[in-house]
Order: sequence, then C-alpha cells, then structure tokens
Amino acid sequence: MDYNLTRRQMIRLGTSFGMGLAGAVFFDHGLSSNAADASQGNPWQYHELDIPTSEKLGYKGFYKGGCAYGTFYGAMFQLSRKHGEPYSSFPIHMMKFGTSGVAGYGSLCGCLNGGAALIGLFCQDDAVRNQMIQELLRWYEQTKFPIYKPSFSPIETEIVQTKSNSVLCHISVGEWCGISGYKASSKERLDRCARLAGDVSKKTTDMLNSWLKGGYLAANLSSISDDCRACHGRGGEVDDIKGLMDCSICHDDKLSDHY
Amino acid sequence: MDYNLTRRQMIRLGTSFGMGLAGAVFFDHGLSSNAADASQGNPWQYHELDIPTSEKLGYKGFYKGGCAYGTFYGAMFQLSRKHGEPYSSFPIHMMKFGTSGVAGYGSLCGCLNGGAALIGLFCQDDAVRNQMIQELLRWYEQTKFPIYKPSFSPIETEIVQTKSNSVLCHISVGEWCGISGYKASSKERLDRCARLAGDVSKKTTDMLNSWLKGGYLAANLSSISDDCRACHGRGGEVDDIKGLMDCSICHDDKLSDHY
Repeated sequence: MDYNLTRRQMIRLGTSFGMGLAGAVFFDHGLSSNAADASQGNPWQYHELDIPTSEKLGYKGFYKGGCAYGTFYGAMFQLSRKHGEPYSSFPIHMMKFGTSGVAGYGSLCGCLNGGAALIGLFCQDDAVRNQMIQELLRWYEQTKFPIYKPSFSPIETEIVQTKSNSVLCHISVGEWCGISGYKASSKERLDRCARLAGDVSKKTTDMLNSWLKGGYLAANLSSISDDCRACHGRGGEVDDIKGLMDCSICHDDKLSDHY
Repeated sequence: MDYNLTRRQMIRLGTSFGMGLAGAVFFDHGLSSNAADASQGNPWQYHELDIPTSEKLGYKGFYKGGCAYGTFYGAMFQLSRKHGEPYSSFPIHMMKFGTSGVAGYGSLCGCLNGGAALIGLFCQDDAVRNQMIQELLRWYEQTKFPIYKPSFSPIETEIVQTKSNSVLCHISVGEWCGISGYKASSKERLDRCARLAGDVSKKTTDMLNSWLKGGYLAANLSSISDDCRACHGRGGEVDDIKGLMDCSICHDDKLSDHY
C-alpha cells in the first residue's frame, strides 16, 4: 500500500473539512459537561461510573444479550443500581437488536452501536455528541483488540489481538478469524467479541466520565482518509460521499496515482 | 459482473445455512405476536399504528433529529399520543446518535438503525426479532429509494430513485449522488434521505402491525450472497465471516471463477 498522497495533502490544507475528527481542531467546542442539562430538568443525567466495573460488566453483558447489549449494560446496570430511576426503567432489552452488526447482519459492530447509543442518551449537545462518538469509532478502527483479559473467561488460551481499520462487524471478525485461525462460530471468537464489549464499555465510560467532569476535549485522531475527504467530503470539490470510515478497506486502489 | 455461481450453488444445496434469511425457510418460527409478552406484564407493548402516518412522521422526524431519530419517531410519536406511558417517557433524543451512519460516520444507514431499534424494543423473541430486522435490511438493499413523495417537500424537482445493494449510509448516499448528480451536502440529498426515513418508518410499522396481529412470517428474500455464505458462513467449510450483507459490493472479484 502506497501512501503517496502529497498532492491531496496539499489540497487538504487549503480546504475546509466540514465535519470529522480532523475538523475538530477547527471546530473545537471546548470543554463540555452535562451541567447545563441538569439545570434544565433533564432526567437522563450521567453520573460518574467505575471504569473497571464497566469493563467487567460489558464482558458479562455480552453473554446476556450480545455485543450492543453488553456495552450498554456496562453503564446502565451501574446507574440503575446506584441511582434507581429513570435508569432502572430503561428498556435495555431493546439493545439486543444490535447483536453481530444488527441482527447478525455484520454491519456496524454492536459494541460501537451500544456505546454510541449511551453517548446519545446522555450528551444532548449535537456537536459534542457527534465528536465523542466519532472519537470512539476512530479509536476502534485504529486499536488492536481485544485488550481485556478477564480472569473468569472460559478461554484459557491466548486470544490474539487484531486491528481491523473498520467499524464493521464483518471486517472486524473476518480479520480476527484470518489471523487467529479460529472459525467465526468458535467459542474463542465469541469470547474475543465479549472482551471487545468490555473494551468498548470501558472506553465509553472513560469518555463520559471526562465529559461529566467538564474535561472532555475531542481527540484529534487523524486518518489516512482525511485526504480522501478533502475532495470527496462536505465542502470538497467533488462532495459526493457521506462518512468518516477508513476508505482504504474498500478503495485501496485509490490510495496512489489517483489523479 | 458475472453471476456464474453454479458450483457454489450446488455446494449450497448440500450445506446447512445456520442463520440468515435464506435460512428462514428451514428455521421458520411461524406466526408470532406480542400476545405472550402482554400476559407477562411487559410494559413495552406494541399497538397497531397507522402506516401512512408513520411514513409522514418518519419524514418529518428526519428534519427534527436525523435519520435514525426520524424512523423511530414515526412510531413513537403515535404511541405516545395515543397510549401515553411508557412511550411518552422514552428518551427518544437518544436516537439522534444514529444520524448519517452513526454521528456522520457513514456506517449503518440511520433509518435502518432506528427501525431495527424499534423492532428490538417491541419484539423480545430473539429469533423472530432477528428475522424481522434481517428482512428490513434485505428489503432496503434491494429496493429503489426514495419511494415517498410528500406533497409538502421543499424540493419541487423529481428525486431520482436508486438501489444501493448495501445497508451502509456511505454506499447508499454515494450511489444516489453518482446517479442523480447532486452533491452529498445538497438540499436535494437531504430531502432524499428524509423521504427514505419515511419509507423505512412505513415498512417497519407495516411489519410490526403484521407481527402484532399474529400474521408476521419472515419473507424469504434471497441474496446472491447466500452462495458465498454456504462456505464462508456459519456451518460452512470455511466459516470465517459474520454477516448477511450483500458481498458483491466489496468482493465483486470473487463472484466468478472463485475456485
């Protein structure tokens, strides 16, 4: 893969980005918390949560209701136990819809769907919510998973870590199967995804805790695809796509000599 | 594109599918309703809704909170108005997280994320819920959108219909921009997606109404990719992928002479 993008990088420097993580440095909404929401009678306040507990509950929740449920459960179980209503009445069973890329369809990783829904539940500022979710998704694309190693896992052998460069269940699981040699229907793959639910639950809680304390500032996680979006994204010359996913997964033939 | 899949089609005939729409003919859960749930004190009962109203509210909801919010709003607004609690307390603002493929990321189309969440909220039978959501997503892949033509749209010109063969926002919007010639940031593209929220809201309500009345039977919407999954899916010889998406979008080089 050749990352010779000099011409597009130059164009990028002269172009406004519109939305996106790279844009965060230009469209910085600064520190944000839910203090404003609290003063307006919003019952869906976030309360600081214990990060290792979210990680553990995310893992355990996976085995109760799948990946999206697991990540969501990591925070909601704690909120319900510590603070009662309205958390204890939230119909958390709903989140089972996100399992395996939504009902097994292999689209968006359910861990991310659950984490993004949590952020959407608590952060009602459109710009900050989107920045937080974009950071979560970009972190997922660029990180080797799983990180969590629960002492009570049914899998005693080492679970290999892989980076998928994608937020899609299909690619994330396929990449892991290809490198680990395990089948997609194996108990090892299942536990790999359970650990991933722990990882995303931990990350989401960490971000929400920072936001609660007024210390959240969107990370400037750049992507090779920022260059693609300089032309194809909002405000670019072509302006014919939506999205912030890593383009290289499907368009690696466009990464060099594109002009 | 060459669909010469005869050898794999033959293999498919001798292989169990595991999950998926094609599998529905083998794993038919028959008629299903929420009558069982109602008898067990579940407060999240579905009530029959007016389909044209869902279509209209899905469109209008898009302009209030984006695509996922719009589709969800199509049903939840009606339930809240007609039946009060618990619908009127549902934190529907949460669904804004799904906008433009989740916070603008271009992954799963938000209309589908909203529709799938609605099905997950009301249908608590894992197998039936997954079948319904899979049917919704397959229908989306194979249908030309938008269908809805609101008389009160701000766009007076014809909005071209396109079929994306994908559940991803990025591909759905990209395909439409390519054929229509409009930019992704145009008001025509925005209204195209608002109409799509109306379409998915209508379809979701139609499916839930059938399910409520005990008349829901998963449609057997086949896909060219059923042949891919005969080997690569659960129970297949390779068993290295998750998902039910149309494979041809990213793997068209594998559609012929694959052996």
